[in-house]
Amino acid sequence: MRILVIGATGTIGRPLAKLLGQRHEVVPASATKSALTADIANADSLQTLFQKVGPVDAIVCVAGKAKMAPLAQLSAADFQFCLENKLMGQVNVVRLGMPHVRDGGSICVTSGVLSHTPMPGSAAISLVNAGLEGFIRAAALEAPRGIRLNVVSPPWVTETLQAYKMDVPGGRSALEVAGLYVEAIEGRAQGATLEFSRKG
Amino acid sequence: MRILVIGATGTIGRPLAKLLGQRHEVVPASATKSALTADIANADSLQTLFQKVGPVDAIVCVAGKAKMAPLAQLSAADFQFCLENKLMGQVNVVRLGMPHVRDGGSICVTSGVLSHTPMPGSAAISLVNAGLEGFIRAAALEAPRGIRLNVVSPPWVTETLQAYKMDVPGGRSALEVAGLYVEAIEGRAQGATLEFSRKG
Repeated sequence: MRILVIGATGTIGRPLAKLLGQRHEVVPASATKSALTADIANADSLQTLFQKVGPVDAIVCVAGKAKMAPLAQLSAADFQFCLENKLMGQVNVVRLGMPHVRDGGSICVTSGVLSHTPMPGSAAISLVNAGLEGFIRAAALEAPRGIRLNVVSPPWVTETLQAYKMDVPGGRSALEVAGLYVEAIEGRAQGATLEFSRKG
Repeated sequence: MRILVIGATGTIGRPLAKLLGQRHEVVPASATKSALTADIANADSLQTLFQKVGPVDAIVCVAGKAKMAPLAQLSAADFQFCLENKLMGQVNVVRLGMPHVRDGGSICVTSGVLSHTPMPGSAAISLVNAGLEGFIRAAALEAPRGIRLNVVSPPWVTETLQAYKMDVPGGRSALEVAGLYVEAIEGRAQGATLEFSRKG
């Protein structure tokens, strides 16, 4: 398969690109650090990326920013940022990317554990993650040409917890998490939220 | 209790206002048909409403528009409309309404069955409904002064199905659905999505 990985230089993206590269042709893209760049919050930027890359069998998005902050401090602008970036950015990866995916291919985007296991400060992120899962459940019903749409909900990633010196139970290595994306791409899931056991 | 009902003239709002009015003081508001009006998509309009109404024990929102259309026809503007209206409109009912809710009071907003039981055409609505549920799960962790935040996920409402001549199983009368809101307001639920058994 020829697979476009958006966010290929990130914490999950790096091991994912390596894992997929063992048996597929990976086309890496990222915000700034790859030969191919795209800003997922900008629809024109995504369109340009998809046109440059051409036909693929799968698109994976492991990119998307959202803001963690106490509810009382989250401003209208903060919500807007989260909606434009991690939420609509990935909705647009699906909407604008689909015509470039070959028959029977797939697209996989990224939500996260805070969707169903929130914590103080996660109001905007939980909204974004849950909203994306709702979108994928519905959009998959209308995907044409046998294309599958799925979302991976990563748990806390060990490397992230270590970088931020956070003590949250249930962390998994980025490589383990990458396995969920491989399952979404190589398996038969459709409209699914792929995750380790909830609360895991 | 003194309860502000936003959307008090709608299909669910009417029986809900009647039901709550049997043992509480109801302050009805709606987009155009009440003495008190507000456009939930407009934060200033909501602020004005809350200031006019003053302190309440509960706020219920049974208002919010979102667009049903085939995925291939949903434009960026359609998604934007849904995000501003049913999603952020109700997030703002929570954010801006909270200071006007008395200690130990509650706020209840509205998602819908398409969050978890999507159908073709519901991609934007499913996103909005699921996103709102994710927001409430998280925001409830940070609600101050014993305030409870919940979301009701109505099934298809019989009156709506009849009005649109739709044949969908699992419909419940608007009065039955109103009971879910009464439970959210009078019960002890916190951060919950109140619904009849999933799949209706």
